[in-house]
Amino acid sequence: MSSSVDPLRQCIAQLSRFPGIGDRTAARLTYWLLRQEPAVADDIAGAIRYLAQSMVRCSICCDISTADPCRRCADTSRDPSVICVVERPQDIVAIENSGGFRGRFHVLDGAISPLDGVGPDQLRVQELLRRLEDDTVTEVLLATDPDVDGDATALYLARLIKPLGRRVTRLAHGISVGTELEFADRSSVARAIEHRREM
Amino acid sequence: MSSSVDPLRQCIAQLSRFPGIGDRTAARLTYWLLRQEPAVADDIAGAIRYLAQSMVRCSICCDISTADPCRRCADTSRDPSVICVVERPQDIVAIENSGGFRGRFHVLDGAISPLDGVGPDQLRVQELLRRLEDDTVTEVLLATDPDVDGDATALYLARLIKPLGRRVTRLAHGISVGTELEFADRSSVARAIEHRREM
Repeated sequence: MSSSVDPLRQCIAQLSRFPGIGDRTAARLTYWLLRQEPAVADDIAGAIRYLAQSMVRCSICCDISTADPCRRCADTSRDPSVICVVERPQDIVAIENSGGFRGRFHVLDGAISPLDGVGPDQLRVQELLRRLEDDTVTEVLLATDPDVDGDATALYLARLIKPLGRRVTRLAHGISVGTELEFADRSSVARAIEHRREM
Repeated sequence: MSSSVDPLRQCIAQLSRFPGIGDRTAARLTYWLLRQEPAVADDIAGAIRYLAQSMVRCSICCDISTADPCRRCADTSRDPSVICVVERPQDIVAIENSGGFRGRFHVLDGAISPLDGVGPDQLRVQELLRRLEDDTVTEVLLATDPDVDGDATALYLARLIKPLGRRVTRLAHGISVGTELEFADRSSVARAIEHRREM
């Protein structure tokens, strides 16, 4: 036993690789696993392994999917003239759930962040520009986050895409629907004033 | 694809089985996994499965171990006359790291907690009593937590074991070493007064 790896320590070490999970949490999860039926650990391990084995990048939109091209890129009923650019795959779900968009998507895989050493080269910008070689695309809707990095990324992309003669739009930011003005956060109110619309 | 299980949703569902990990955190961990090399998911899944496959309960002390009897129960250099009773396997590590104990251990696997529906029958009390049939054991050191459940469990065990003619002791609780009185929490100060020693 002394020569083999200690399964307890190994499991704690592996679980603490997850972001936001430290040694103490990893130990708590590991001891919890030990109190369950072995099938629980098997199911969790199986799902993690199955995920890594079955998910691929869509070669068109760079979303993570079980097929290439992905379900959305293969769906001919979607409007091919608008591409919505998001930072992360999970942002697509938010837009889809809103029911307000039936165009195509493009996943950047992050945002420009000089502090984190992320420049345009680390993002899937070239893949996006390649899609714009197709004249069908008339509008690029930038749906990066309304924060410093997301705004910088949107600005960078707008400067790159506008000269190609395409309409570049950005998701509206302001006070969330249902929020009372009194309780809205300062930045949202500031954005709402800055981007006020004519009525 | 539509008929098979979605690996993304499956992984989120499985990870959210962990205590303290909700759907949102599970989704964050899953998307993090997708951004790593497949080997990372493989290593984590392997460690979880290896844990479940290789850990067993020691039939003597009820600790979780890779062997039965466990390393500590098989170690003849340890004092067989004292058994330290703890709630959880990880409590053994805390006691071992203190360097202050060289006797035997017993894992109860919890504490009596009427609110959570945990009574003595759900704990490894019978296994402890069986060990006391051996006359070598002269002292039982109760190291359950200094909270309502831990105190109740200690009291219950003391009433059970004292009539068997063994010395029953409890870990001292009070102000932690290094803590200034000014900053000690109320309960610890109360305990320290209650259990004050003659000098």
